Amino acid sequence: MRIIDIIEKKRDGYELTEDEISFFVKGAADNSLPDYQLSALLMAIYINGMTDIELDILTDEMARSGDMKKWEMIEGRTCDKHSTGGVGDKTTLIVVPIVASLGGKVVKMSGRGLGHTGGTVDKLESIKGFSTMLSADQLLENVNRIGAVMIGQSGNLAPADKRLYSIRDVTGTVSSIPLIASSIMSKKLASGSDCIVLDVKCGSGAFMKTPEKANALAEKMVRIGRNAGRRMSAVISNMDIPLGYAVGNNSEVIESVNILTGKQKGDLYDLCIELAAHMLMLSFDKPLDECRDNARKAIEDGKAFKKLKEIVSAQSGDISCLDDTSKFGRAKYVHEIRSFHSGYIYSMNCEGIGSASVILGAGRSRINMPIDHSAGIILCKKTGDHVDIGDVIAELHTNDRKSIGDAEKVFMDGIVISNEKPVSRPLIYNIIE
Amino acid sequence: MRIIDIIEKKRDGYELTEDEISFFVKGAADNSLPDYQLSALLMAIYINGMTDIELDILTDEMARSGDMKKWEMIEGRTCDKHSTGGVGDKTTLIVVPIVASLGGKVVKMSGRGLGHTGGTVDKLESIKGFSTMLSADQLLENVNRIGAVMIGQSGNLAPADKRLYSIRDVTGTVSSIPLIASSIMSKKLASGSDCIVLDVKCGSGAFMKTPEKANALAEKMVRIGRNAGRRMSAVISNMDIPLGYAVGNNSEVIESVNILTGKQKGDLYDLCIELAAHMLMLSFDKPLDECRDNARKAIEDGKAFKKLKEIVSAQSGDISCLDDTSKFGRAKYVHEIRSFHSGYIYSMNCEGIGSASVILGAGRSRINMPIDHSAGIILCKKTGDHVDIGDVIAELHTNDRKSIGDAEKVFMDGIVISNEKPVSRPLIYNIIE
Repeated sequence: MRIIDIIEKKRDGYELTEDEISFFVKGAADNSLPDYQLSALLMAIYINGMTDIELDILTDEMARSGDMKKWEMIEGRTCDKHSTGGVGDKTTLIVVPIVASLGGKVVKMSGRGLGHTGGTVDKLESIKGFSTMLSADQLLENVNRIGAVMIGQSGNLAPADKRLYSIRDVTGTVSSIPLIASSIMSKKLASGSDCIVLDVKCGSGAFMKTPEKANALAEKMVRIGRNAGRRMSAVISNMDIPLGYAVGNNSEVIESVNILTGKQKGDLYDLCIELAAHMLMLSFDKPLDECRDNARKAIEDGKAFKKLKEIVSAQSGDISCLDDTSKFGRAKYVHEIRSFHSGYIYSMNCEGIGSASVILGAGRSRINMPIDHSAGIILCKKTGDHVDIGDVIAELHTNDRKSIGDAEKVFMDGIVISNEKPVSRPLIYNIIE
Repeated sequence: MRIIDIIEKKRDGYELTEDEISFFVKGAADNSLPDYQLSALLMAIYINGMTDIELDILTDEMARSGDMKKWEMIEGRTCDKHSTGGVGDKTTLIVVPIVASLGGKVVKMSGRGLGHTGGTVDKLESIKGFSTMLSADQLLENVNRIGAVMIGQSGNLAPADKRLYSIRDVTGTVSSIPLIASSIMSKKLASGSDCIVLDVKCGSGAFMKTPEKANALAEKMVRIGRNAGRRMSAVISNMDIPLGYAVGNNSEVIESVNILTGKQKGDLYDLCIELAAHMLMLSFDKPLDECRDNARKAIEDGKAFKKLKEIVSAQSGDISCLDDTSKFGRAKYVHEIRSFHSGYIYSMNCEGIGSASVILGAGRSRINMPIDHSAGIILCKKTGDHVDIGDVIAELHTNDRKSIGDAEKVFMDGIVISNEKPVSRPLIYNIIE
């Protein structure tokens, strides 16, 4: 078999066979195929698409290119969630304790932040002492005893995807529905959970800019997962506005505590209830409405917050800062961005807000860069809110004074203030059960 | 400017600007852009095409990525021809002396053979002592004195095309009309001739398999050349059958001599007359029919053959072997391929014949491989001829006895013998004046 024949076949719009897909995925994983041939093939896939059959095979081959986790030693169904990436998205820190507090079993592996999106591992590391690396034995012990672990990716998960993603990232072949779907689902299948809830983001801070595209992506991923024997559910949610008010690592942990202790409601609370409810529904075969009620109750009666402290404690984290969030470090400089106009916030560019937070030190523009846990942005106003001249729209927190000017410019470039009140968009566009 | 934005723009089907095309061509020439980004862009161009405006800019930028030859020191219009590559195509050796014998000025730069197609430089080197490298002064002196030189590519012609072609060759992006047109025309524009005649091949031995596609390619190239201020003409010719009867270096020189001395007529003679006539028409603004007559007369009265000897002599070649072609070396082994069937030769796979000649030693499968000038194939029958059982279809000539079995298999795999006489196809499908 020759890669050039496979490239030409996809270039001309034909369906690839199982053997052909297997050949190029193996060649990506073992580095026997060069970047330039894979990039030509990825561009042909981007433009000409893939059939559902090709997509199932591609995802399966990428998953099986590395370790395939199995959680036979965990009692009951294991449950996972995945977000396609957004700004201010701290749902994992809230949803995992809710689900575990209601008997769910969650092995949640997360990544670090890159570009305008933050990463759960970075957020967790804001908690003093918290370890995102557990031994296999410790992981099983924790999940069986307290219901959940929140860790970094361990082992060699979907190395073919890792190689292909690194090429896609620099060749204009990221935002393809089949390539995104296979990339995400290969890692989810390899991660081994029985139940998978997808939070597919839609809007200015997400890959998918329209609800139609986000829905198409969600449908592909749900189908792939079900064909691979997993229980699947997807929520298509709004990412035209950052989720909650905090963007930055310490502040997002604090906001998560505020949700779990019932102090904060709104979009972040609502989405977390929805995601937790789907995880519970898939885990226990209970009606979705009952699961939503249970999720809300777990916050009201303090069970979910107690569970967060159990999880943090079991992973060597300091829980005193969760009881007293004033213990989290604060940045040296706090700069208030004030409105020059009076009117409504008509739109906010979510990606711009994420980029501004990276400039302040809260995130990374390249892998392996250090980050500043106390840096970030606190939004005081969000899309649809009214502002008068001089009102504070947001606070920029940083230890790098020189970054403030650039961050303010990037932030404000994405803010539109208008006399017209914007049409309110739903938080959740669609649900695929 | 970022290459990723250019890739994404072409991926999504938009027209690139002059600045964008210039950016990626310069990045290809100076190696500042990596292979994997260029290959993704080339695939996007392959699938989504290019507008005529983009194509003119691309060709011009590729031409100007290296030396731009100018022949101001040559009196009168300079004239060039280019063939898109075929099997048994020795037209240069015949057409250049015809045109020079009638007052044309030809600076003909050629390449070496690669894959199933031969190269004029290899053929010329079959003549003992012949030098395909001339100093700039010698070149001008020869053209002004005798009307023509036949040399290898000198200087740094279209280095961007060289880089892009090497990537296209291994990424399934060769057979694109805009990419072929810009590749050929960038080198032709850089070569500096005022008049350019294109011989666009069509059929089993060519990139373009149908007359429609060959015509489309020819039209693009003629348009590019004219927009760049050159006098252009194109002949779309049949490459379903090798041209003439000889495939291999020594034997093709001998066949060229046979044409120039009036001993051989047929497809090769007819195509050479046509190409020479177009070169004369563009050079002297005379009617095409008059030019055809003049070309035929130049053969009849021996002027063209005399001119060949002048050119060879001026480039240090031994002309005695032209007067007595038995002086050319002969291969040690001559194997006759005989027909197992009676009937008509219904079709011959031209590419297969070229590949068989490479196996015998007449060509190269990789650049820089040595070749055997005496190896090759003499066709005794061609498409449309009747054969009886036992008739010789072809002779295989080689010094490598072990190659004969493979070469015969590859040759015969491409021969179809049938009771039905094939419909005769024209030698020349179309002419673009």
